Amino acid sequence: MAHITDTEVFQAFSTYATIVILKMMLMGPLTGYFRVTRKAFANFEDTHMGKTIEEKKRMIRVNEDVERVRRCHQNDLENIIPFVVIGLLYTLTGPDLSTALLHFRLFVGSRFVHTVVYVMALPQPSRGLSWILGMVITFSMAYRILTTVLLL
Amino acid sequence: MAHITDTEVFQAFSTYATIVILKMMLMGPLTGYFRVTRKAFANFEDTHMGKTIEEKKRMIRVNEDVERVRRCHQNDLENIIPFVVIGLLYTLTGPDLSTALLHFRLFVGSRFVHTVVYVMALPQPSRGLSWILGMVITFSMAYRILTTVLLL
Amino acid sequence: MAHITDTEVFQAFSTYATIVILKMMLMGPLTGYFRVTRKAFANFEDTHMGKTIEEKKRMIRVNEDVERVRRCHQNDLENIIPFVVIGLLYTLTGPDLSTALLHFRLFVGSRFVHTVVYVMALPQPSRGLSWILGMVITFSMAYRILTTVLLL
Repeated sequence: MAHITDTEVFQAFSTYATIVILKMMLMGPLTGYFRVTRKAFANFEDTHMGKTIEEKKRMIRVNEDVERVRRCHQNDLENIIPFVVIGLLYTLTGPDLSTALLHFRLFVGSRFVHTVVYVMALPQPSRGLSWILGMVITFSMAYRILTTVLLL
Repeated sequence: MAHITDTEVFQAFSTYATIVILKMMLMGPLTGYFRVTRKAFANFEDTHMGKTIEEKKRMIRVNEDVERVRRCHQNDLENIIPFVVIGLLYTLTGPDLSTALLHFRLFVGSRFVHTVVYVMALPQPSRGLSWILGMVITFSMAYRILTTVLLL
Repeated sequence: MAHITDTEVFQAFSTYATIVILKMMLMGPLTGYFRVTRKAFANFEDTHMGKTIEEKKRMIRVNEDVERVRRCHQNDLENIIPFVVIGLLYTLTGPDLSTALLHFRLFVGSRFVHTVVYVMALPQPSRGLSWILGMVITFSMAYRILTTVLLL
């Protein structure tokens, strides 16, 4: 086991993958925060804040702030999980530490920017650019995997 | 390869990760079951049960039972995949078998409870607590990764 | 590290996992393409094509073509990520190269068929069968993992 975890590239991957997955997981509690403060729930059993049945039923509704956080969370699932999978396989191709760190840092940075821009609804093209940067980095790692270990 | 798969912690991780991923995958057929029994589809080509065009069109609708299973499936994606990624990296830091088993068993158990509670719409806080338990376990493994291999 | 990446099964897994993850990632730009051509957006800051506030507001709408691509993307998340996780653990159990290649090729092929059938709305049961084939392959790999390394 020492063979893998002793390499610095693997340690760097573990660090950045863990950080960006934790960032993604925090979208769950953030959704919960907006659901409670906006009183907009999806399940009837979550509306215990309401005092009457009528009030509870009115809390089953769609709120734009909640939906925005959920779209951001969904975009994380669509981009961060591919990064983690491709990043692990990339790490196992034995890249230079400096090159690998450049990929990992730029990706994780781009996703933190993406989240802030999305949740605060900052003007475009900031969200688009941070999304594309993350995609390009993952494609770059995928290119190295396919040119190193291709076996069809 | 023997170096990794020969450790008992890795075998335990493989076992629990496979079980909890299989549980997540079964939400797909469960959604299909509710779509057919509730006659509530998302795609027009799925409404072959309908005899006339009018009847088929009425089957393109949103049903609360279907949506409940889909929300449960989505919650699985948001929590089980982070567990698998963090769990793999955690396994490679070489934890004690008993500590690792405690993490894996509690997480997988919490997600089975979460699914039953969600799909059967049991009263809160049962769903909230099972969700939080899963989050805390993943955070605990992430903490060990970051304190063991941190390389920024 | 050579121990893992030097095996041909691992190289085959890296290749097919990368290809199918790239396929999944391309659903993001495809969604963007349909959003722009159908003028159907989810965020107000994305409607810079509109000249007046009224026109921009009308672009915040749900379009069936966009939703179809999003459902296909969601189905990818629900099926391709389990394949990658189960496939990695399966690869580490040391299967025959020919058996492993059969699994990887059929899965990746089934998902390409699934995407074409879904986006073009081809008649059932083509989409159902391609989805089930992918599920069966992942279950087959999960069966090998559990019968090889089971440690509860």
